This record gives sequence, structure tokens and C-alpha cells, in this order.
Amino acid sequence: MKKLTHINQKGDAQLVDITDKAISHRKATAEGSIQLNKETLKLIQNNMIKKGDVLNTARIAGIQAAKKTWELIPLCHSISLTKIDINFIINKKNNTITCQSSCECFAQTGLEMEALSAVSISLLTIYDMVKAVDRTMVISNIHLVEKSGGRSGLYKREIKDKPKKGVKAKK
Amino acid sequence: MKKLTHINQKGDAQLVDITDKAISHRKATAEGSIQLNKETLKLIQNNMIKKGDVLNTARIAGIQAAKKTWELIPLCHSISLTKIDINFIINKKNNTITCQSSCECFAQTGLEMEALSAVSISLLTIYDMVKAVDRTMVISNIHLVEKSGGRSGLYKREIKDKPKKGVKAKK
Amino acid sequence: MKKLTHINQKGDAQLVDITDKAISHRKATAEGSIQLNKETLKLIQNNMIKKGDVLNTARIAGIQAAKKTWELIPLCHSISLTKIDINFIINKKNNTITCQSSCECFAQTGLEMEALSAVSISLLTIYDMVKAVDRTMVISNIHLVEKSGGRSGLYKREIKDKPKKGVKAKK
Amino acid sequence: MKKLTHINQKGDAQLVDITDKAISHRKATAEGSIQLNKETLKLIQNNMIKKGDVLNTARIAGIQAAKKTWELIPLCHSISLTKIDINFIINKKNNTITCQSSCECFAQTGLEMEALSAVSISLLTIYDMVKAVDRTMVISNIHLVEKSGGRSGLYKREIKDKPKKGVKAKK
Amino acid sequence: MKKLTHINQKGDAQLVDITDKAISHRKATAEGSIQLNKETLKLIQNNMIKKGDVLNTARIAGIQAAKKTWELIPLCHSISLTKIDINFIINKKNNTITCQSSCECFAQTGLEMEALSAVSISLLTIYDMVKAVDRTMVISNIHLVEKSGGRSGLYKREIKDKPKKGVKAKK
Amino acid sequence: MKKLTHINQKGDAQLVDITDKAISHRKATAEGSIQLNKETLKLIQNNMIKKGDVLNTARIAGIQAAKKTWELIPLCHSISLTKIDINFIINKKNNTITCQSSCECFAQTGLEMEALSAVSISLLTIYDMVKAVDRTMVISNIHLVEKSGGRSGLYKREIKDKPKKGVKAKK
Repeated sequence: MKKLTHINQKGDAQLVDITDKAISHRKATAEGSIQLNKETLKLIQNNMIKKGDVLNTARIAGIQAAKKTWELIPLCHSISLTKIDINFIINKKNNTITCQSSCECFAQTGLEMEALSAVSISLLTIYDMVKAVDRTMVISNIHLVEKSGGRSGLYKREIKDKPKKGVKAKK
Repeated sequence: MKKLTHINQKGDAQLVDITDKAISHRKATAEGSIQLNKETLKLIQNNMIKKGDVLNTARIAGIQAAKKTWELIPLCHSISLTKIDINFIINKKNNTITCQSSCECFAQTGLEMEALSAVSISLLTIYDMVKAVDRTMVISNIHLVEKSGGRSGLYKREIKDKPKKGVKAKK
Repeated sequence: MKKLTHINQKGDAQLVDITDKAISHRKATAEGSIQLNKETLKLIQNNMIKKGDVLNTARIAGIQAAKKTWELIPLCHSISLTKIDINFIINKKNNTITCQSSCECFAQTGLEMEALSAVSISLLTIYDMVKAVDRTMVISNIHLVEKSGGRSGLYKREIKDKPKKGVKAKK
Repeated sequence: MKKLTHINQKGDAQLVDITDKAISHRKATAEGSIQLNKETLKLIQNNMIKKGDVLNTARIAGIQAAKKTWELIPLCHSISLTKIDINFIINKKNNTITCQSSCECFAQTGLEMEALSAVSISLLTIYDMVKAVDRTMVISNIHLVEKSGGRSGLYKREIKDKPKKGVKAKK
Repeated sequence: MKKLTHINQKGDAQLVDITDKAISHRKATAEGSIQLNKETLKLIQNNMIKKGDVLNTARIAGIQAAKKTWELIPLCHSISLTKIDINFIINKKNNTITCQSSCECFAQTGLEMEALSAVSISLLTIYDMVKAVDRTMVISNIHLVEKSGGRSGLYKREIKDKPKKGVKAKK
Repeated sequence: MKKLTHINQKGDAQLVDITDKAISHRKATAEGSIQLNKETLKLIQNNMIKKGDVLNTARIAGIQAAKKTWELIPLCHSISLTKIDINFIINKKNNTITCQSSCECFAQTGLEMEALSAVSISLLTIYDMVKAVDRTMVISNIHLVEKSGGRSGLYKREIKDKPKKGVKAKK
């Protein structure tokens, strides 16, 4: 049976010792979605087309969350990211906004938590900005899409989601 | 059509002016789940029964996230919480852990974002602590369950989720 | 001769004791400007008209700075703001962007530092976002415009700046 | 026409991708001033000569701001500084204190924002500590003096300010 | 047997629910000491007499730590302090510096952790600033001296420490 | 007489310039204790045996404090730790819990402050969690045990503490 690396032999929480690991170029992409009312999505889009503020604010929040993941997730190492890219895909058919974040760094440990934190906080920020008009929003499907670098090499999520037919958020 | 309160007439982002709102006793409960492999859930449970570290660490992370929601979500007001309660429900049937957070405060504005942030960061912390053995985890169904206080009064989520048959995490 | 309230009788730094002061409704407005190249201003405006990202990002940064002023300025008390409003005025004649912030709260102490921090960080964020095309920018004229509340009552800056003929940033 | 590097092709805010840039030894020096009343300057100097607390507190605040620039300016990368030096020059003739900060690091991106943040927060801290006796202070002339390292090499501000005849703050 | 209030019936960590407690005026005083080499103490004093920087920097660090205690100690509530006073007493006989902090607030919960955090971080800052010349320093005797306010009323530490014959740090 | 490296020639506080120092593998171990009532220690142990929450929460707080030492101690450089290990030793004879932390990194400067901060905040967290049942706790004997790396090489505390006869905290 595999072992939980964050728990040592005594069962105590620990910051995994990465002292002996090599620095490598690492990438991680994560994704998640927020389900909205049809009307709410329109409001965001109208605003977005004109000024983009809801999504830009969510993007800024996500970028900042990625940078401070080590502060939010107790057992994450502090790493310096060289790239944080956050995109939103609007799917009018099922009234969702999908947030996708891609991060890169040179480090002794992976950065999937940074990509996942960026997605989570971006989606929470959308929630916050439209919650006055829509209380039934649901944030779902936050997962790792792909990662590379380090000893374990490339990982791509096998279980394919159905192809997203949403249009890229145009401005 | 309703208006986005976080966006002013010019479409700029703004911290909603709550100067004229009365202080009231407010509550919010939020919920979300993480889907795991059967084997991963067992590992957490074994560890939990003995020492509870995975879930306790996730709980601590969630409490701290609730307290710093104003720092994570750009347009949230800074409020002082008088209660943050975080619980985990393990559902062996579908291999999920549900995180539920209940927060209270006396404030001029609601605290659903605090409850939602607590849930999100708690689940991300579980993810982080077991990601070495399970890369296919998915965080889902983060939503507001109930809130009260303020002008809008009591809100209870209408669309009932199917009754959770999970057992309360025992220790 | 007046005394420095932040320095006690021994000359040590101190957090001014506000225990005996009454809570009152307080307001503060501050202002400052950034001088840019003509070409840089055009770039921001073109971007702004289409998407508003430079100014929106600066606005978000300013709002967040106001909320964490107590963390940035060592001897500021931690207060909860009920309003943070940040506006930008573009003056094409002299190629400047003026940032104006208005904050409100109910507190035992004033909030001019919150308004001033919001202005400073907003302007630094504009600087950061356009520094690749313009290294000669200068941030100037950061000052308190007006404040009210508390024992000292209303203060309005006497020395009038020349009337700004800039146009309000339209989007 | 040059492009705004912080805005991608779609006009979205982004953390500039520095993955492919080489690490180089980088330096940046920034400067700014605060205009005070004659009487206020004397108070600071008297205190300074005896205990130096106003300027020392401002220096500490500036050093801490430089270290957390990545948290204050949304699109700044997180970098580790190897040197932060903050000096104050008192000019009795025109009643100003000029703050100068010099920072160094080994990084894939420049650090002018760190130097500028240090100056801004140092000056705001002076403002905070003497605002009880002087409400007409103005912070001005915050600019980059010099920077080196990276592809763009050495930059020195061409437009010379008039020689400062102020005396170095002696203690 | 008494119960641990931070641990609920199931043994989980919790933020104690203070929703039903009344707001009261609260005070707390804490104390702790650092043992130094004779030579180190002289260095600090010489510097202190001239410029006071070691102790002023320690004082600033302590004040800032008190304000962010809720961030450092996971189960502390976030409270706004109305007074933070930090003093140092130098005892040449046994080569120690004693740090004493007094805090006040109006809150539903006590603030002894704020007073204790201020002392701890102040002493660690002294340690940091002189560690290049003295590696054998020991920080000791960090304890609560007195607290008042709330249901439990006044508490004064019964076990008297021997009278401190140190001189108040003069500047 | 040795010089205080954190104070420059003028006596100003400074972030020590480490630009020219080589990166080396560095380690530091620090230690400190908390004195409790017999009854309090039993409560922690009972809880610990069953769920370990008090000590696990203290451990998490210590790990997070180590990561943000640069934010707590004004003149500490920001460094990325590759290992943070925190252990507790319970000594039933004298009713103390000793906290020991070991940190590692590759950096241009030492990390003893990170190890010492981890110990201090871990002990304060224990204090916070049991203070409702015990107000006479004292935190003592916080010191550096050992450090290595950098120009100064290995340091081991010479003055041996009496051998600790405490049992390792078993769970």
C-alpha cells in the first residue's frame, strides 16, 4: 500500500523533505468550473464585453493566490513561479465558466497546488462578485489536467472530460 | 434586470459601500466535496483513526482561510468572525469526503465567502496531503447551504442534494 | 511646540492608545498622480477602452492595499473599512493619470493612511504594468484631500491645486 | 508601437512569462520625497538625533515592503532580495526628506518595483508618524534612478534632477 | 477535570464560539527575557544610546506581531487592538533584556496571545539582530503577567518573580 | 570588539548584504520548552493519544511560521526552506513539552531564525490551546542547538543542557 508522504512514520504532519531532489523545470495545468444562472452569465458577459472587470478581477485574485499558495496550504513549500496564466472559457449551453490555470517554475517540488489554488480562488472571486444576483452557484470539477517535470515526469489526466463546446471568452 | 453590486455604474470594480447598513448577527454554512480513490480514502481513515492529522490539518487550513478571506477575495470586506466550525463527513460508498463549514459574526455584510473559502482551502489541503498517492482527485459541489442575518434574511438552498448517507467522521 | 503622537515621552515608537476615544463615522479622501509618456498614456487608454485591464488591476491593488494598511504601516491600527472607492482621472494635456481614493469606516481612529496607501499602491501598479515601455514615469503629489469624523472634525486641504482639466476616465 | 507586456494578446492581465529568461545579478535604485512643514522637520530631527525612531521605523517599513512587493503589486513575480538599503536625506532648505532605496538580487526579472515599493512605504510611514502635527504633507517625485542586470542592461535616469544640496541625515 | 475549549467533543480543533459573549474592555500584559553575553549587551546599549535601532526595530516587530496574532496562532480570533505598548528593561547584573508588552481592546475574547506574541517576536528580533556576535542567547520566561476584562475578571500572576533590579532602558 | 552586522556604520538598521555570499546547503536546529501544570499535560496527552490535535495544530503553526519568518522578523531575508521538521518531547517528570525544529535550505544566508520562529510559534500555539485551563504556563529555554553551512561552518551548542529524560511523544 502506498504511503502518505505528508505524514511521517509517527503519523505527524510534515513538510516533505525535498533537500535531495534536483531542481527541474516544472509545469502544471489545473481546471475548474462555476455553474451560474443564465441571467447571471449574461450580466458577466455584458460587463465583460464592455470592461471585463469581473473576469479580470477573478484573474488577478487567482494570480495572487498562486503566489501565496505556500501560505494557504500548510504543507506546501514556498516556490517562485515564473509563469501564471489564467484563462476563462464561457460555455453558454450549460451556463458555466471554466477557469484554467497554467503555472511554471524551476523548483525541487511540483506546483500543482499553485495551479489548483489559482483556479479555486478565481472561481470564488467570480462567485463573490455576482452573489448578489445569484445564490445558487456551484463550483465544481476542480482537478489537475496535466503536469510535468521532476522524477515522476509527464502526467496527463486519463479520464477525458467530454469535449467542451464552449466558446473562448472574447472581449 | 438585476445589477452586479460589485461593479459600479461605470463598470469599475468596487468594494460595495456598506456604511449605511446595520450591524446584524449573521451566519453562513457552506459545503463541498472531494472525490478520492477507494485506497486513498482508506489511507486517510487509517491515519485519522490513529492520529487524525490529515483532517485536522485541513481543518486548521480552513479556519485560517476563513479568517483571511478579505485578503484572498479582492472585493470582500474585512470582518471578524466569532465562530468557525469545520466538519468532515466521510462517505465510503462513493469515496468522497464532504467538508462543511459554519461561520458566524456580527457585521454590516454577509459572510458566505468566508464559509466558502474555508471549504475550498480545507479540500485543497486534503488534496495536497494525499496527492502523492492519488492524482485523479476532483473537488466538486462547493456551494452555499444556508445563510441568515441582514436585510435579506434567511436563505436555504432549495435544490436539495440527495441525502448524504455518509457516516460522520469518527475518531 | 506640538508633539509627535507616535513617539512616547521616552522617544520610543508606539501604537497610539485609542482606548478612550469614541467610535465615530470617519471619511478620508486622498489623491496622487503618475506622469507618463504621451505614447504610454495612449496605450493604456486603448487597452482601457477595450478591456480596462490596466486601470482595473490598479484599482484592485489599491483596494487590497487599503485593507492591509495596518500590515504595511507599522504604527497604524487595524480597522475595518466599510467603503473603498478608487477612481482614475486621465489628463491628456499633461499626460498624467490621477488616482483618487475615498474610504469610510466606523472607528476610534482616522483612516487617512488607508486612503493614502490605496492611492500609492494603485499608482505603483500602473507603473508596474507599463514599465516595459516607459521608464521615466514619476509618481507625485500624493496628499490628503479631505477627512472628517473624530474629535478634529472636518479637514479640507486649503492650498488648492489648480483645477484639473482632465476628463474622467470613460470606458 | 510598443506593447504592454503585462497585457496579453487578448488584453488580459498576466504574470509575464519569464521561464526562458536567464538568472542575472540585478540592481535597482529608486527615490522619492516628502514635503513637510519646517516645524515638523525639526521635530523629526530632534527625535532623530536622540533616538532616530521616526526614520528607523520608516526604514523598517520600507525593508518589509520591498520583501512583500509580490503581494502588493498583483503582477510582480516573487523574488528573493539579497540586499535592501534605505537611506534618508534631509534637506532643510526646502523642508523635504528624500528616501533612497537600493536593492539587489539574482533573478530572472528586474526589481525596480521592489525599490519603488520600499520608497513609497517608507515615505507613507513618515507621513503616518507625523500626521498629527502636519496634515499638508505631500509625497512626490517617486521614480527609478538606476537599474542594471538582465537583457536591457544598465539604465540611468537621463533627466537629471537639480543637485540636492541637502545634508545626509546624521545621527 | 477541566476541558480544553479549543478541542470540541469529538476532539477536533475549533475556533471557540464567542458569538454569545459580551464585548468588554480587555487588557493583557505579558513578559519575557533574552539572556545575552555581557559584551553583546554593551553593543546594544552603545547603539541604543546613540540611535536605539536594535530595540526600536524589536519594538516595531512586536507591535506588528501583536496585530497579526490571528494569522500566526491558528485558533486565535481576529481582534482589533486599541493599544500596544512594548517596553524593554535592561538588567546589567544578569545580562538580560526583559520585554514587556501591554495590549488593550474591546472584544468578545481575551488578548493574552496578542501580548505574548508581541513579546516573543520582539525577543526573536533582538536575537536576529545580534546573532552574528552571540550564538548562545536564550529566550526565556515568556508568561502572562496580568489580564482583565471578560467573565473571568482580573488575573494577576501569583508566583512573584524576584524583584527585577534592572534599570529602565534609557535613551 | 565585534560589530552588529544588522546595523551599518551610521547605526541604521539594514538588511545585511548577502549578494556576494555563495549559496550553500544549510541546516539549523532549535529548541524550546513550555512548562505546564501536571493536569494540563495529562489533558494534552489524553487528547493526543486519541487524536493528537493539540500537538498537530502546534506543529502546523510552527511550519507556517518558519515559512513566513521573513515577514515576522524585519531584517531576515526571504528564503525557501526544503525541510521543516517539528517534534515534541513530553517530559512527565517536570511537566514540560519540549519543541524541537530542524530546517534545511540552499541559501546565501543562515536559517536559524526560521528554526527559532517555528519553535516559538509552536509553543505559543500550545499555550493558546490550553490557556483556558492553565494560566501559569511559562515558555522558556528557546535557543539554537546546532547549525551548519556557510562560511562559519558547523556550530554546536557547547553548554550542554542536562540530558532530557523525557519520553518521545508517542501516539
